[in-house]
Amino acid sequence: MALRMSTLFLRTLREDPADAELPGHRLLVRAGYVRRVAPGIYTWLPLGMKVLGKVEEIIREEMARIGSQEVKFPALLPREPYDATGRWSEYGDLLFRLKDRKDADMLLGPTHEEMFCLAVKDMYSSYKDLPLALFQMQNKYRDEARPRAGILRGREFIMKDSYSFDIDKAGLDKAYDAHREAYIRIFNRLGFEYVIVQADSGAMGGSASEEFLAVNPNGEDTFVRDEHGYAANVEAVVVPQAPEVDASSTPAAQVHDTPDTPTIDTLVESLNANHPRTDGRSWTGADSLKNVLVMLVHPDGTREPLAIGLPGDREVDAKRLEVQVAPAEVEAFEEKDFADYPMLAKGYIGPGVLGSEKSSKIRYLLDPSIAVGSAWVTGADEPGKHVIDLVHGRDFTADGTVQAGEIREGDVAPDGKGTLTLARGIEMGHIFQLGTKYAEALGLKVLDENGKLVTVTMGSYGVGVTRAVGVVAEDNHDQYGLIWPRELAPADVHVVVASKDEEVFVKADEIVRGIEAQGVEVLYDDRRKVSPGVKFKDAELIGVPTILVIGKGLADGKVEIKDRRSGERREVEVGSAVAEVVAEVQQS
Amino acid sequence: MALRMSTLFLRTLREDPADAELPGHRLLVRAGYVRRVAPGIYTWLPLGMKVLGKVEEIIREEMARIGSQEVKFPALLPREPYDATGRWSEYGDLLFRLKDRKDADMLLGPTHEEMFCLAVKDMYSSYKDLPLALFQMQNKYRDEARPRAGILRGREFIMKDSYSFDIDKAGLDKAYDAHREAYIRIFNRLGFEYVIVQADSGAMGGSASEEFLAVNPNGEDTFVRDEHGYAANVEAVVVPQAPEVDASSTPAAQVHDTPDTPTIDTLVESLNANHPRTDGRSWTGADSLKNVLVMLVHPDGTREPLAIGLPGDREVDAKRLEVQVAPAEVEAFEEKDFADYPMLAKGYIGPGVLGSEKSSKIRYLLDPSIAVGSAWVTGADEPGKHVIDLVHGRDFTADGTVQAGEIREGDVAPDGKGTLTLARGIEMGHIFQLGTKYAEALGLKVLDENGKLVTVTMGSYGVGVTRAVGVVAEDNHDQYGLIWPRELAPADVHVVVASKDEEVFVKADEIVRGIEAQGVEVLYDDRRKVSPGVKFKDAELIGVPTILVIGKGLADGKVEIKDRRSGERREVEVGSAVAEVVAEVQQS
Repeated sequence: MALRMSTLFLRTLREDPADAELPGHRLLVRAGYVRRVAPGIYTWLPLGMKVLGKVEEIIREEMARIGSQEVKFPALLPREPYDATGRWSEYGDLLFRLKDRKDADMLLGPTHEEMFCLAVKDMYSSYKDLPLALFQMQNKYRDEARPRAGILRGREFIMKDSYSFDIDKAGLDKAYDAHREAYIRIFNRLGFEYVIVQADSGAMGGSASEEFLAVNPNGEDTFVRDEHGYAANVEAVVVPQAPEVDASSTPAAQVHDTPDTPTIDTLVESLNANHPRTDGRSWTGADSLKNVLVMLVHPDGTREPLAIGLPGDREVDAKRLEVQVAPAEVEAFEEKDFADYPMLAKGYIGPGVLGSEKSSKIRYLLDPSIAVGSAWVTGADEPGKHVIDLVHGRDFTADGTVQAGEIREGDVAPDGKGTLTLARGIEMGHIFQLGTKYAEALGLKVLDENGKLVTVTMGSYGVGVTRAVGVVAEDNHDQYGLIWPRELAPADVHVVVASKDEEVFVKADEIVRGIEAQGVEVLYDDRRKVSPGVKFKDAELIGVPTILVIGKGLADGKVEIKDRRSGERREVEVGSAVAEVVAEVQQS
Repeated sequence: MALRMSTLFLRTLREDPADAELPGHRLLVRAGYVRRVAPGIYTWLPLGMKVLGKVEEIIREEMARIGSQEVKFPALLPREPYDATGRWSEYGDLLFRLKDRKDADMLLGPTHEEMFCLAVKDMYSSYKDLPLALFQMQNKYRDEARPRAGILRGREFIMKDSYSFDIDKAGLDKAYDAHREAYIRIFNRLGFEYVIVQADSGAMGGSASEEFLAVNPNGEDTFVRDEHGYAANVEAVVVPQAPEVDASSTPAAQVHDTPDTPTIDTLVESLNANHPRTDGRSWTGADSLKNVLVMLVHPDGTREPLAIGLPGDREVDAKRLEVQVAPAEVEAFEEKDFADYPMLAKGYIGPGVLGSEKSSKIRYLLDPSIAVGSAWVTGADEPGKHVIDLVHGRDFTADGTVQAGEIREGDVAPDGKGTLTLARGIEMGHIFQLGTKYAEALGLKVLDENGKLVTVTMGSYGVGVTRAVGVVAEDNHDQYGLIWPRELAPADVHVVVASKDEEVFVKADEIVRGIEAQGVEVLYDDRRKVSPGVKFKDAELIGVPTILVIGKGLADGKVEIKDRRSGERREVEVGSAVAEVVAEVQQS
């Protein structure tokens, strides 16, 4: 049955909603697909339900194709399993926690590794039961600090999460590859530009985690690419360790008075004025070793200071650092913290006091670009003093390295060959070789061929379902409205009666019935008292890819077919209207 | 693609789960349809998802047929709309409340009248936009004190809730009737015995609220029926006011010493021994007027005592009383409360002190069976004393009547003609003429034909979706397992290979492909190392209505088709197996 505009629960808006940040989101609200209830919490209206249903169907088909079985875990969950893996606390404020009437702690599931793991543990016991792949599609909850851009980053959202269970790494690799292929098919069908990037994978490292990012200048994720096909989320970029350099001709380190130089800029100016380099070039920020202090807050609440040494012309990238120190959170190192460490001369802090063996006992990690043998100007741990020609490995060492420095356009790729460019994206999918982390925490073991208990190896795979609708909207619109890819459109054809003449409606009814008889879905603008101009505007806004206009031309036996994306129009004989529309819908 | 038992995420259990109360629930757990995560919170496994999907599809079809449009509101909701209608507090402990990271109050939606009302208010403004009917199918949350019988009364459950919006009562009646018809079609298709009963409808009264109850001896609801077609939830039964009787020959009331008679039984015994009736029959409990005290707790926390007078052989029905006093809750009248009311002689309380005009000032309501003119023996408000021949209307009055007495098998129907029988049921659907209650609280008005603002009239209609699966299971099983109605079965046919001979599997594969080519869904027991006996047991337990056994008979060119419900088996030629199975599936 056609969706009829005369009865459809819809009120298109001519004005942009006040709270909408991005163009696609504005159009989804204006065209009546979604409606905001609270920050990051949305209602899906009838047109939105149609699109959402089609996204879900694509995902179901592609998951079935790789043999993944659909289940549904509750969204309201008991605390205990999330305690066992530490995530009850690690999730911090992101987790919606609540108590039931018996004062039992519960949570709204942000993702379900624990629950799947426990279900498999309960039901399976042998390697013969594996491999296994399960998925669900359902509401997830994350109490985002800054819910953003409508359905792109909601606090309640639909996610498809899958989990694979295998007896060994070879099985996991196979499951991972199958999911990767399924995701490629899903995202190709959804119809937006995406890139597959290496993602941070915490302790796992390597290629065990990839993200599917929708390429979008308004995205919250930054990723890098090089000319050889390398692509990674900026959090996952591994800056290569700079090769050792020869320091044999570097003079001994000298401490100099550099009064009033607590910043890199003031230092560089002072050095160029008072201590010019002997090699003829000027000092730059890149010659200085900047030591940045942060405070880590561990899940148990303990606070641990951390010092990061990196070239003075680079900043610490907060997101890259967060990934490295998770589950600890990063806070600023404040005045009161300085008071606790009197050996730290603020603005003049150097490796002389930093490091777990040094007077501060503060762990000290270097950016990998700080080569052994390289010489630096850095703080001398006394106000107004810096030390020049301090050589890494000769005059100072650190506790290790950390991947926390900012990544810049033009940086060398991790392989040392490519040149990085930066772009922004929206995370649409994430595939992740979890390994045994959850299975170990929750005791998921099965008997292997030799009757020995082995821990099951898991993979976890997610697609943002509601987010996908948002991304498609961001990627498929023009100034007049949305332009849905055919597979996601709320209907195949939008039939507009551009007349108030009842005879035209009678003819239109007949054509609509004819089109529907071919299994083609119609959105039918059968409104009697709305002007053709308003109907055309609504059709452009709603964005069904094919528009059939039945109006004045009918007197000459003509109707008009319009392609929403190209704007191309053509007249066809009314007698062949059904066939033409069906052909158009089926071919494209 | 066939569901294959060799890979299906399923482990059937031979033992009943410890926490399962009802036979259908036990079988759903044993056959691997659902799995308990926490009290009242369940996971749906692959077989359960299939059945659930079919229930949802039936509901979607029938809602579409009456022009109801599907939407989806969030499950996580802001507090404000529920404050506006008072339900934030009225729901009491049933409501899951939580706070977000900004300390804003939120709730998990138990039902969505408020949200629908606000959405329509936002989008619609004229009578021309009406009528409108919307529905959603999604997780609902109620923190039940006693989550029960698996998915029958969960704390997280799927509900289909619909709402109608009309300009007037005539429109509401039409919407109500349409939903009633749709529900009849839905419940007929689901395949369990049900009855439509008048339901309590609070202030609305009359036929404005009906429940669809699955008839089930384990149900939590009690309903009555009579021989003339009357049916009502026991909470909705309106006991007729007993007609006035002539008291002219009743002697004046006399106070008698009745020591140690604080209960009806002791009183009756004492009266028969010491004060025999003059009409020759013995005293019974039905001759006494029992006065029951309860404490009402209003939503604002204030406590109000209430006295209920009813024949001594009847109890107050807590559920009937709750309905009458809602949103107040009913608590026991405790010793400390008696201490606050010294005029109450416990065990000997009579109308002498009860009533808002009397010394206790306690509101006093009578059962409607207490006729004006009828004479009673009741407490004389002194320990050890009762009064005989106390006549209602002559010697005492009350503040009104209340429908709170128990209803018994054999009672007279409200029309005064029929005789009531009692039975138990499970509430599966509820249709309810809300009227303007929510629209008024939230300001949902539209302009009528004369340009005047009128409040919209709403209806609300619910179906328990996950509960339906539970009820169907309770109603469709035998000692061996479940027996699904064809339209809900997880597959159309269960093909069992009763052999370990690889050639039999090859033939079975071919037959399965043949069946599937006809669009018939197969659950295929292709397990290589499982005995035929175990496979047969699993097939009975899982309950697909048609079972095709391919085994030994194959040597003679025969396979066996078994009807799960009747147990009937018949051999068919292997060459016609596909056609026979398809015919069986399609005809029944």
